[in-house]
Amino acid sequence: MVKKKPLILVTNDDSINAAGIKALIETMCEIGEVVVVAPGKPQSGMGHAITLETPLRLKEIFNKGHKEYICSGTPVDCVKLAVNVILKRKPDLLVSGINHGSNSSINVIYSGTMSAAIEGALEGIPAIGFSLLNYAYDADFTLAQKYAKAIALNALEKGMPRGTCINVNFPSLIEKEVKGVRICRQANGNWQEEFDERKDPAGRKYYWLTGVFVNYDKGNDTDEWALANGYISIVPVQYDLTAHHAVPFLNEWSYEI
Amino acid sequence: MVKKKPLILVTNDDSINAAGIKALIETMCEIGEVVVVAPGKPQSGMGHAITLETPLRLKEIFNKGHKEYICSGTPVDCVKLAVNVILKRKPDLLVSGINHGSNSSINVIYSGTMSAAIEGALEGIPAIGFSLLNYAYDADFTLAQKYAKAIALNALEKGMPRGTCINVNFPSLIEKEVKGVRICRQANGNWQEEFDERKDPAGRKYYWLTGVFVNYDKGNDTDEWALANGYISIVPVQYDLTAHHAVPFLNEWSYEI
Repeated sequence: MVKKKPLILVTNDDSINAAGIKALIETMCEIGEVVVVAPGKPQSGMGHAITLETPLRLKEIFNKGHKEYICSGTPVDCVKLAVNVILKRKPDLLVSGINHGSNSSINVIYSGTMSAAIEGALEGIPAIGFSLLNYAYDADFTLAQKYAKAIALNALEKGMPRGTCINVNFPSLIEKEVKGVRICRQANGNWQEEFDERKDPAGRKYYWLTGVFVNYDKGNDTDEWALANGYISIVPVQYDLTAHHAVPFLNEWSYEI
Repeated sequence: MVKKKPLILVTNDDSINAAGIKALIETMCEIGEVVVVAPGKPQSGMGHAITLETPLRLKEIFNKGHKEYICSGTPVDCVKLAVNVILKRKPDLLVSGINHGSNSSINVIYSGTMSAAIEGALEGIPAIGFSLLNYAYDADFTLAQKYAKAIALNALEKGMPRGTCINVNFPSLIEKEVKGVRICRQANGNWQEEFDERKDPAGRKYYWLTGVFVNYDKGNDTDEWALANGYISIVPVQYDLTAHHAVPFLNEWSYEI
């Protein structure tokens, strides 16, 4: 059963100033007591990074009846600080996003949004990462908000299998164009990188990471397929990275020194 | 068959100045043509972070017959720059480490060392992360070097299953104390964090992440068990994070808006 006032932790990687987290906060305030702990500046691509070389800072602000904490660190730092310093009890739900841009396929491992959700799973908290396939600052989150609410209510009522969280991606479509929700696996895709080589005013080279995503996966059970075909994709995500199928292969190696 | 002069890319997360990478370079020079691309400063805990907000820089140096590139970014940035900018062909092997300190159990997701290896797997390169359970700057890497050589020769000869790399952890023992090598799964463990709260000279709070690792896993097929019982642990690691077993559970949810 859903509790009367579930405690919901909200974070993201686009920073506390992003429109996506504002949309998510608004929606979560409809179903629970909300505490926000989010980075003060963009943390896209931070993956599961934690801050070890510098100390962390928190700034507390009040915003329309809920508390928001601006954190100097990464999305995973935000979750750790929320759970261990800020919150008096374990939250009933962690939501991360709504990310401006896709986190499907391999992007799950680079994504600060999803790493925050994975950290939630590690803490035993039902956790969801939400992403919209639209990078624009003023993207329309209306439909994503409706589905985020429905999905969050499921998670609050039913929990998650141990060791897992979920990765939700919304196609950039209006309501009547969306065909529904598909539970998927992570597509086998990757980035074909190119570095943009430039010279600074002193003549020294520097590099910007750029590239194009390539989907190698022909399956119709993947997140890429779902999103390309008008569905919202949900991928269950785990933090056990063991490639169990490779164990026999490695047992055949010779380990003599 | 092992090629005459395999091309071996060496990286780490403790920085190019660490004793562990110097030991690994020395060993890899015995079996191949070595190119080093490593961070200029410590990148422990950076996970799979990539640098998007600032450009990257590379500094090239020559060192006893091989080239070394000092990179301003993360371990994953090092791999991407090596593959896309520096190397003329795909390396035959990527080795990362030897890390000063354990990367067993859940540490695989926080580890820059292992994220570099995972990025290698993504690029289709046989890739190995090595870690020694000793944080000391002047730790003895002699035994780790011997096993690293044997394991690297296996990887060069036999390759890796698609989508996987391996995570090798060495106990801090001398040769006669080591019982051998065990192929393991990632133990189910986690950090119980505490934040050390302090005040700066201006009276403002700041936080240092600290904590203790807790192993919840009683299995004797885990990396934690192997290391605690005198074995070298090898865990095959994959970047497909899909929790396939959770798909039926999520198909039971209601997605009505």
